[in-house]
Amino acid sequence: MGKIVECVPNFSEGRDMKKVERIIAPFIITDGCKLLDYSTDKDHNRAVVTVIGNPDCVRRAVVEAVGIAIEEIDMNKHTGGHPRMGAADVIPFIPIKDMDMEEAITLANETAKEIADKYGLPIYLYEKAATLKERENLANVRKGQYEGIKEKILKPEWKPDYGPSEVHPTAGASIIGARMPLIAFNINLGTNQRWIADKIARCIRHISGGFRYTKAMGVDLEERGIVQVSINMTDFTNTALYRVFETVKFEAKRYGVPVVGSEIIGLTPMEALVDSAVYYMQIEDFNMNQVLESRLLE
Amino acid sequence: MGKIVECVPNFSEGRDMKKVERIIAPFIITDGCKLLDYSTDKDHNRAVVTVIGNPDCVRRAVVEAVGIAIEEIDMNKHTGGHPRMGAADVIPFIPIKDMDMEEAITLANETAKEIADKYGLPIYLYEKAATLKERENLANVRKGQYEGIKEKILKPEWKPDYGPSEVHPTAGASIIGARMPLIAFNINLGTNQRWIADKIARCIRHISGGFRYTKAMGVDLEERGIVQVSINMTDFTNTALYRVFETVKFEAKRYGVPVVGSEIIGLTPMEALVDSAVYYMQIEDFNMNQVLESRLLE
Repeated sequence: MGKIVECVPNFSEGRDMKKVERIIAPFIITDGCKLLDYSTDKDHNRAVVTVIGNPDCVRRAVVEAVGIAIEEIDMNKHTGGHPRMGAADVIPFIPIKDMDMEEAITLANETAKEIADKYGLPIYLYEKAATLKERENLANVRKGQYEGIKEKILKPEWKPDYGPSEVHPTAGASIIGARMPLIAFNINLGTNQRWIADKIARCIRHISGGFRYTKAMGVDLEERGIVQVSINMTDFTNTALYRVFETVKFEAKRYGVPVVGSEIIGLTPMEALVDSAVYYMQIEDFNMNQVLESRLLE
Repeated sequence: MGKIVECVPNFSEGRDMKKVERIIAPFIITDGCKLLDYSTDKDHNRAVVTVIGNPDCVRRAVVEAVGIAIEEIDMNKHTGGHPRMGAADVIPFIPIKDMDMEEAITLANETAKEIADKYGLPIYLYEKAATLKERENLANVRKGQYEGIKEKILKPEWKPDYGPSEVHPTAGASIIGARMPLIAFNINLGTNQRWIADKIARCIRHISGGFRYTKAMGVDLEERGIVQVSINMTDFTNTALYRVFETVKFEAKRYGVPVVGSEIIGLTPMEALVDSAVYYMQIEDFNMNQVLESRLLE
């Protein structure tokens, strides 16, 4: 089967389903590329697409889809609750199989160059593909949004990585990058005290002293009358799911609060769960090649 | 990708590697069929092959390989420590993906009929494919071995399911069936007292009152100076790995003995480990479709 990359392009259209269908068509018709999922949000006015496949095939489909998005979307008329800077707003590449981060970064660069050359679109590289420290964080790059980028792009420190130093008149600019698979892993607490979830979130998240590849915040689950530590695991290979789960459990104990459940939203790589099973059952010398499905994917 | 079946044929040749290579060749050259592993044992004088693929392709390769085994192996000259009844001794089919047990049983029947017709070999069906209660257990069918089958086959209750009611002059008889994937899951105890492993094995194994799909016995790990509960999980979908693991832990506590580790020998379906991770991290409403690799295999 060879190398597999995942790509999660975000397009600034979430209301006109006809337009969305035209934009995602390349992910359906391109050989070697599989559309796993797409969701649209009317309030955000945004479509989030998940596609996997051979890196070359995915790159070709992405370039096609961006071309269609440029035709279909006029950012001057775009409104929506989610921050956005362009018609093809953010395009992260995620190495899944027989690929390392370096190869995903190379793929991000090739895709960025092709899009910039073909459509005259300015491109910023972000996360692992970032060329400057200030461009690693997506929020930082997107600050000012579509309305602000016209000025921002003129500053020397915000010269795009590829393409012209002026925004596309209707499609703005795009942000392309490479990152690890992200796992949305939420842990539910048997209490309605939101402050407890907030306290625990602060213990585990990187920014306030917690695990390096963990983002977290407390949220209310009003319908169930409980609270949740809502977590993004940004690199499960270095910050393991079970480690965060056990830490939340022992922090919750301080308040006499039990962990009543957890949830994984969307997709997760098999390895994140197998790795946790191996921890809990103390399996010695386990190798991912012992998983039948790994062999099937060869 | 469609339906996937696993097949683990056992051939009665483990000393002459040239012969083994000729026997397994069809698993390498047949399209739609992948040889995952094979191991030979000189003492047992036996080769165990693991192959996966499309059911039709695997069936064709198995029929080919049995034909070669009949040419290469003369059971009248066979010696070895492992019980055996024929040149192509045992051939279990295991449903892996998009296949249920009924389909694996049908495949076992088709393969048995084709082999019986083509080579005049008597075939017994066993485990889930068994036509009589007494044929479910492999050891029961094989009792008497090659030397005894000449007499046994003449008894009305041991009339073969396919093929003639007399043994093949050099290849004996074969046993074909369908079963669930088997997981070899061993749990190590922090003691050198073998009787403790034996006691715990008796608690968890089906035959002496334990879990329905568990076989177990105590063994010494002499090199490490500890003992092990050596377990075969015969249907992880109904007797979960974590359940057996936790039971061994709490039984060991009675003797003040810790579980110091475990091991999985050979292959395991992803679901067996994911299922255990979902238990330990209390993940609510998890669906195997959330595993990226499941989607990749579609």
